Amino acid sequence: MSAVICTVDVVLLTLLGEELAAVLLRREHAPFAGELAIPGGYVHPEDDLSAYDAAMRVIKDKTGIVAPYLEQLATFSGAGRDPRGWSVSVAHYALVPHDLLASRKDEAVHIVPLSQLGPLPFDHQAIIATALERLRNKSQYSSLPCFLAGDTFTLPQLQRMYELLLGEPLNKVSFRRKMSEMAMLDPVDGQFEAGGAHRPAQLYRLKAAVKKTLTVLERGL
Amino acid sequence: MSAVICTVDVVLLTLLGEELAAVLLRREHAPFAGELAIPGGYVHPEDDLSAYDAAMRVIKDKTGIVAPYLEQLATFSGAGRDPRGWSVSVAHYALVPHDLLASRKDEAVHIVPLSQLGPLPFDHQAIIATALERLRNKSQYSSLPCFLAGDTFTLPQLQRMYELLLGEPLNKVSFRRKMSEMAMLDPVDGQFEAGGAHRPAQLYRLKAAVKKTLTVLERGL
Repeated sequence: MSAVICTVDVVLLTLLGEELAAVLLRREHAPFAGELAIPGGYVHPEDDLSAYDAAMRVIKDKTGIVAPYLEQLATFSGAGRDPRGWSVSVAHYALVPHDLLASRKDEAVHIVPLSQLGPLPFDHQAIIATALERLRNKSQYSSLPCFLAGDTFTLPQLQRMYELLLGEPLNKVSFRRKMSEMAMLDPVDGQFEAGGAHRPAQLYRLKAAVKKTLTVLERGL
Repeated sequence: MSAVICTVDVVLLTLLGEELAAVLLRREHAPFAGELAIPGGYVHPEDDLSAYDAAMRVIKDKTGIVAPYLEQLATFSGAGRDPRGWSVSVAHYALVPHDLLASRKDEAVHIVPLSQLGPLPFDHQAIIATALERLRNKSQYSSLPCFLAGDTFTLPQLQRMYELLLGEPLNKVSFRRKMSEMAMLDPVDGQFEAGGAHRPAQLYRLKAAVKKTLTVLERGL
């Protein structure tokens, strides 16, 4: 058996204004040195307990943050995807609030709206496409979009995060019913956000118990 | 970077009478020589185009069949799962009709009902549990259970396959409406199966166009 290159890659998504954006890093080393790519790196058998652990380490080392929710996406493999040889990349994805990234980000970290993504090295475009499909499916049935939100948010803001990930508008009444069914939000006492012409909107936060786990909707949105 | 062991494992499920059953093989080599385990093997970078390709090869070599529908399940990794060292196993799953297996199976192949599974080596129990969870989710929204069926089947038989994978009974009328919505079945002209006290049931087969692909239900069963 010849050696297989074993890496992890991470699709790290955040909100940039009203758009979904990916975290890209300027690659320091060959192959594709100098190009923007999604964060990734070799598995370190001495340090990493698992591929999941390796992905957490890569995010921490390369962007300075601890992702609140990280999930395995799929594994991409073969002779053609990496010029160094036959490789397996265990791809993961994470959603992070923009504030968290902004507070830690250094020069190497680029936050690029999905609508402005150029060509990417390796099969990173396919990995991002797979992540977006997974996000669309999973947003239909879970609290996943909440991980894009910062500490507090209004219901219209949360609905917008769901709509961005689902790629379609949602009915306000049924959206609110589903959120209440998931029982994962706490109103923030006395805190409201002024909304221009509208009356102030109540601010919410995720309950502590569900801040790092996924809440699932039995029948979907 | 030290070397990582790269393997594939396959959860191959079939129907044994009225039960879901897993295909297990008696292991020839250490570790766990002589024990029953799910089919698996090293990735062969010289021969395999991808981990998917490796999984197809493993199924073919070890059971003699070509799986009509194979899908990547998840990747299991870490220092603890294989006594040989830090390993990555790209797990896949496939559903196959019992007739296909029965026609090719040799002495090493065991078809064991899930209710009778004993302890398994490596993390094979966790891999099977993950496969069953995926199957339950996916059966809710697709033609996946059809891959358990042989060439022809009645609607009550197909409903039973859905129920086994979902782990719950289905309403007959709504099940039939959903099957017709997926538009994937052709009645077999003039062929009926006598059903004891009941009147003969029409036999169906999958349309040629959907025999190797998954048909998806927009809103689920």
